[in-house]
Amino acid sequence: MSPADTARPQLKIRSVALDTGRENVVVISRRSRALRPEVFSGFSRVELRCNSRTLLATLLITDDDALVGPDEIGLSEPALRRFAEPAGMLATVSPATPPESLEAVRAKIRGETLSDEAIAAVIEDLAHYRYSDMEIAAFLIGSASFMTSGELLALTHAMANAGTQLTWPEPVVVDKHCIGGIPGNRTSMVVVPIVAAHGLTIPKTSSRAITSPAGTADTMEVLARVNVGAEEMKSIVAACNGCVIWGGHVNLSPADDILISVERPLSLDTREQMVASILSKKLAAGSTHLLLDLPVGPTAKLTSGAEAMRLRKLFEFVGDRFGLKVEVITTDGRQPIGHGIGPVLEARDVMAVLGNEPQAPADLREKSLRLAAHLLEYDPKLRGGAGYSRARELLDSGAALKQMQKIIDAQGPSAGRSELGDLAFDVGAASDGVVSAIDCLRLNRLARTAGAPVNKGAGIRLYKKIGDRVDQGEPLYRVFTCDPSEHDLAAAAASANNGYVLDGPNGPH
Amino acid sequence: MSPADTARPQLKIRSVALDTGRENVVVISRRSRALRPEVFSGFSRVELRCNSRTLLATLLITDDDALVGPDEIGLSEPALRRFAEPAGMLATVSPATPPESLEAVRAKIRGETLSDEAIAAVIEDLAHYRYSDMEIAAFLIGSASFMTSGELLALTHAMANAGTQLTWPEPVVVDKHCIGGIPGNRTSMVVVPIVAAHGLTIPKTSSRAITSPAGTADTMEVLARVNVGAEEMKSIVAACNGCVIWGGHVNLSPADDILISVERPLSLDTREQMVASILSKKLAAGSTHLLLDLPVGPTAKLTSGAEAMRLRKLFEFVGDRFGLKVEVITTDGRQPIGHGIGPVLEARDVMAVLGNEPQAPADLREKSLRLAAHLLEYDPKLRGGAGYSRARELLDSGAALKQMQKIIDAQGPSAGRSELGDLAFDVGAASDGVVSAIDCLRLNRLARTAGAPVNKGAGIRLYKKIGDRVDQGEPLYRVFTCDPSEHDLAAAAASANNGYVLDGPNGPH
Repeated sequence: MSPADTARPQLKIRSVALDTGRENVVVISRRSRALRPEVFSGFSRVELRCNSRTLLATLLITDDDALVGPDEIGLSEPALRRFAEPAGMLATVSPATPPESLEAVRAKIRGETLSDEAIAAVIEDLAHYRYSDMEIAAFLIGSASFMTSGELLALTHAMANAGTQLTWPEPVVVDKHCIGGIPGNRTSMVVVPIVAAHGLTIPKTSSRAITSPAGTADTMEVLARVNVGAEEMKSIVAACNGCVIWGGHVNLSPADDILISVERPLSLDTREQMVASILSKKLAAGSTHLLLDLPVGPTAKLTSGAEAMRLRKLFEFVGDRFGLKVEVITTDGRQPIGHGIGPVLEARDVMAVLGNEPQAPADLREKSLRLAAHLLEYDPKLRGGAGYSRARELLDSGAALKQMQKIIDAQGPSAGRSELGDLAFDVGAASDGVVSAIDCLRLNRLARTAGAPVNKGAGIRLYKKIGDRVDQGEPLYRVFTCDPSEHDLAAAAASANNGYVLDGPNGPH
Repeated sequence: MSPADTARPQLKIRSVALDTGRENVVVISRRSRALRPEVFSGFSRVELRCNSRTLLATLLITDDDALVGPDEIGLSEPALRRFAEPAGMLATVSPATPPESLEAVRAKIRGETLSDEAIAAVIEDLAHYRYSDMEIAAFLIGSASFMTSGELLALTHAMANAGTQLTWPEPVVVDKHCIGGIPGNRTSMVVVPIVAAHGLTIPKTSSRAITSPAGTADTMEVLARVNVGAEEMKSIVAACNGCVIWGGHVNLSPADDILISVERPLSLDTREQMVASILSKKLAAGSTHLLLDLPVGPTAKLTSGAEAMRLRKLFEFVGDRFGLKVEVITTDGRQPIGHGIGPVLEARDVMAVLGNEPQAPADLREKSLRLAAHLLEYDPKLRGGAGYSRARELLDSGAALKQMQKIIDAQGPSAGRSELGDLAFDVGAASDGVVSAIDCLRLNRLARTAGAPVNKGAGIRLYKKIGDRVDQGEPLYRVFTCDPSEHDLAAAAASANNGYVLDGPNGPH
């Protein structure tokens, strides 16, 4: 015990019913002997110490004895969980010494190149919640202006090593990933059962929607439970060759989740961060072969083939260094995939494709087959070039559907019920013409306004795609909502801009 | 009223007894209809709306109905004050749209140069607490790599215009400023009464210590009240020609205080930010002539004359553009000024100099006279070159002391009592020798460990300065503390490194 510990008043740990997201927050009384108003005040960073454990947290000060008394220290839910010292124990609080690795962040801001060790130290501190939001922002922005290829490798490596690292008994473990941005693009839920039915291992973890109306995890949750931890995941994959679960419970590359939580509100988006983010998760997941889907289109994340090419090279470079076989394909990102946007509608599309139903969306089927074909070719026992026909065989025969049912049964039923929203309205064409463009960003936003993904039954069902002819007043799509207020908001948003461009006899309008 | 407002549940505003420093924080119940967990969760940024008023805030979620019920929204103290809608009113809460000016921050991060309007918009949003900490960090770091001279001018201008702007009836309003870092350097408290006694207007606002053991405001508070607002400041200056108050109550360049609150924890330090920070405050304070003290020394903020020269040019360039006459002098920053470090000890030094006491520190007296001489020369009625002798006359005659008493009386008594700490220990020389260097950073840290500035009576009294001969065991300085635990901490710190370098017969040790 250092002299500093003996000198500081001991406070009794208690829980306070405050959910502070990712941030560790502690609350002390304004009358606390431990409070030194000129050393730390509201929103200062402080260090908690109890036995040999320490925790960095943001401080709130209260005048409400019912919340936290003068001899107590209140820990918010995440802080209490991470500190792992039970309520009632005694702790000291002192001004936080910023993590030493912050010196590397400052060096990066000054324009220096960081060593592997320096980057590893930053990620280690990040993953242990020792960085405040502003310190995370400092690292991201310092790295945004430039990052050497050596730094990118070190970052990916450190991130992959900072959390759970899965291993699999099979020599070939395949995965697919799409960089996102295209509404309705739920190929994973078709690809996984095809590949798993073939016998390849495909332990798929997916994200929930953050800025989109549905993530794969949200959509799968319409059909099955997705909150599955690492151990349970292993037994599901052992039984079914694959799974479609939410990555949040598996703790793969937790530093990535933390970095993303700051990148999003700042709308920071660099190629290097994207590559480190995706590949660190895949390395931690124990994948050996990764197929990357880069949609290109005017309202996609990538708007040109050249941009996609640069990103592809970066993915290949990093993948190669870590022995992860990365294959990158560019796909048509000009418009949504499938008929539905929103968890329930997208789940219906997926099941229609797997069930070979006549109304199944052909584009989702074709894209999924193409992706599955690439993955199947990783099977050394499969004859080169036979991937596509094997994928189609597994889909057409019903083997993929059967595999999906097996996966759904293994993951178990979802907690909530998900039904399509019963308040709907159609959005009609303003004139005769041919659909020449669909704004993916606009439809994503509209589906969110309609309530997706919070309301899983909210969303959009498209009737028309690019190249389709429409008459004035003919419905382009139907919007489903679960709530009268969201119905009104979505109707107002759609009438302001419905996201469709029609080519008429007098040009686009 | 937009459709969004009608659609959102109304929550009753209440106060929650949480002090969250600068940050606006609101609390809603997990059972609130307004909470949409996948749209915003703990620590999300949200926008509050009531009548035509809006407020951006950070969200906490609670399960404690006693704190905030399901139909309520709790506002922390700063949020409630800034929102200016009384408790009991109804408000809506929605995910925050980040301030539009954030697009300029992202442009800066991408390496673009910002227009005057873009910078003004950033500062306007900053000063109105619309930026989160991470957004502030983004702006600072984006600007840290480079800032054009045009951007620096626009930043200074926007900052100066964002808060209170003082005006004075006199044509000449003088001010002095030191960039800090040198312990004991309390020249303002000697210079202000000399200059005011002469009849020049010198409305001095000072800062409290943030990372040092004493700011001028902390030291003046030993003698008088310093929490003075703008109106009262004007009447004090009208009566006494000068004042020495804390700037925090006057609201000069509030964006500067906000930027500093993020710069400090990140230890960001750029010349441009320093210039914009200091000059925006002086422009807002209505100064016409500014004397800048740049101490140079191995453990000072500036370690070479070349560095000081670059900074001087930047101060002169910006000052000229705004019609503020800036004079920059470099001073000896190799060691502390005066005998004392810490508010009470420094206040004693100041009063000893003003009282012409025999034990008064000669270096503080000489430096103060030199600075006052420069300021007095701004008086058009004073003969060129007569500044120094006039300053000495005012000091030696007791006129400056009399003026200081007048200022102290006008500011009124300080609330607390400040006495020298009664737990003291001496730190002795480890060997015979001559003092060749004193580490300012180390002594600052030691004085803080001893309790300064929280305990105004804590600090260090120096017995030896550079060039002084000492015998082994002879005291170099005495450390004063007010608390046994701080005594022990300081003793341990001083024995680890006492901050003195002695040249003995066998070289430095």
